[in-house]
Amino acid sequence: MTEKLFGGIEGGGTKFNCAIGSGPGHIMTEARIETTMPDETLRHVVGFFTPYLSQLQGVGLGSFGPFDVDPASPTYGYITTTPKPGWANTNILGSLCEGLGVPISVDMDVAAAGLGESRWGASRGLRHSLYLTIGTGIGGGTIIDGKPLHGLVSPEMGHIRIPHDREADPFSGACPYHRDCFEGLASGPAIQARFGRPAEALGGDHPFWDMEAGYVAHALVNYIFILAPEIIILGGGVMQNEFLFNKVRKQVQVLLNSYLIHDLLLKNIDRYIVPPFLGNRAGVLGGMALAMDAFG
Amino acid sequence: MTEKLFGGIEGGGTKFNCAIGSGPGHIMTEARIETTMPDETLRHVVGFFTPYLSQLQGVGLGSFGPFDVDPASPTYGYITTTPKPGWANTNILGSLCEGLGVPISVDMDVAAAGLGESRWGASRGLRHSLYLTIGTGIGGGTIIDGKPLHGLVSPEMGHIRIPHDREADPFSGACPYHRDCFEGLASGPAIQARFGRPAEALGGDHPFWDMEAGYVAHALVNYIFILAPEIIILGGGVMQNEFLFNKVRKQVQVLLNSYLIHDLLLKNIDRYIVPPFLGNRAGVLGGMALAMDAFG
Repeated sequence: MTEKLFGGIEGGGTKFNCAIGSGPGHIMTEARIETTMPDETLRHVVGFFTPYLSQLQGVGLGSFGPFDVDPASPTYGYITTTPKPGWANTNILGSLCEGLGVPISVDMDVAAAGLGESRWGASRGLRHSLYLTIGTGIGGGTIIDGKPLHGLVSPEMGHIRIPHDREADPFSGACPYHRDCFEGLASGPAIQARFGRPAEALGGDHPFWDMEAGYVAHALVNYIFILAPEIIILGGGVMQNEFLFNKVRKQVQVLLNSYLIHDLLLKNIDRYIVPPFLGNRAGVLGGMALAMDAFG
Repeated sequence: MTEKLFGGIEGGGTKFNCAIGSGPGHIMTEARIETTMPDETLRHVVGFFTPYLSQLQGVGLGSFGPFDVDPASPTYGYITTTPKPGWANTNILGSLCEGLGVPISVDMDVAAAGLGESRWGASRGLRHSLYLTIGTGIGGGTIIDGKPLHGLVSPEMGHIRIPHDREADPFSGACPYHRDCFEGLASGPAIQARFGRPAEALGGDHPFWDMEAGYVAHALVNYIFILAPEIIILGGGVMQNEFLFNKVRKQVQVLLNSYLIHDLLLKNIDRYIVPPFLGNRAGVLGGMALAMDAFG
């Protein structure tokens, strides 16, 4: 019997990661495609899968957003109001369906990554987890009982408002919709806009990192008070600066101030706020998990 | 055949509402018991139900919190770290079990109220709803697929941090744990602490109400970005000032800035942010719904 194969796509603002396989131990081939204009990018994605179409049960796509994942909506599978040039109102699902001719399941990028981690990674075996990415954008995927949480629309949890002390940090914020929302203060582009160089060029001893950790901690505390996930997984380019984890953990504890009683918050917060177990493959494997759930 | 009867209790910081029946159209008897010290209050609650014990299938309690609703925890059914004098570390479930001798199901007050509204009220027929109370405290209950959302702990969504402009509002906040969290800025006691008189004594044209609506709107926007509920029901004493609803709705739209595309947010927000359909009976009926779900 031949192993069933599935395609995974992580559609991100800087790259589209694609893979074929059936889980983290079974990746047959993968590719990283630069995100340029929609037509060009999606043509390359289709090109990657084309030789394998006869073997694929289906493809799962986790896309950056806002991404319409309501099957009843006329813009189902569209990226809607993104500030990313060229990508607003892009029918990704339509283009891929046309180009590939195999069944495609879609969700938000962070929902897919959260699903991947919950299937094979840091949140495996847990009922309720949160995956957050802090990079070009900030977004989160809540996985409850094996399924990404959606509602009236898809969550866009990077856009929450958090306290912003303008004396300590006069930066007015980089979000074109909300200025100094969490993403507007703490995403990679927000750091770049403050200092004129990318986050990774600041150096680990730059005083800004305490402020960055403070913004992340304020957001995490809000997520904890609202969702109470059993684990929080922090991915994305900014969190590749590993020294941020302990700064964030400490500030979360200061902000919670022992109001919520649980060992994972009070004593073992290093096991509560963690990096992705699947590393930078969480998203593409999550896409694969979407396809396996829908067509496996 | 005799109708099955259930008991409902809404355990609040100022009163314990109790009722016996099987839904909003079938309330046999009800009582409102002042919240004093735990022993006294719970003795009166037991006294209310005692004549009917032989007819009751079970009782459901929605309690103020932080309330431990994890059946695996040694403090299951306890109010844990509340600042309310006399009530920290109170074993409510134990006292009621001992006093009543009937099966008892428990949850957070706001979870019960959310459940009541979702069974018989404003969120009836919806998959995913949020009930928020703004009164003595602020808390929220998220109902997904007919069940209150819990995780590592119970959500305590009144304690999220939101922007606080100390120039416009120099009040340092009333929350003993977090000072100027949402509850610390916008609860009934926070209003009382600012003006030396209760919220209802301010009068509808007091300029503070725009600020209050702004705090509520900031919190709602965070809930929307994180949870994306299909409806938000606002109860509690502060929201009995009905003029607040339109102020809140308008400020929510300003803050969202059309980032999330849905008619309920863009056009029909008066049907998205609504008062409880069950009025001040949402909580006690929610307790009844808890009992009906567990023992019906």
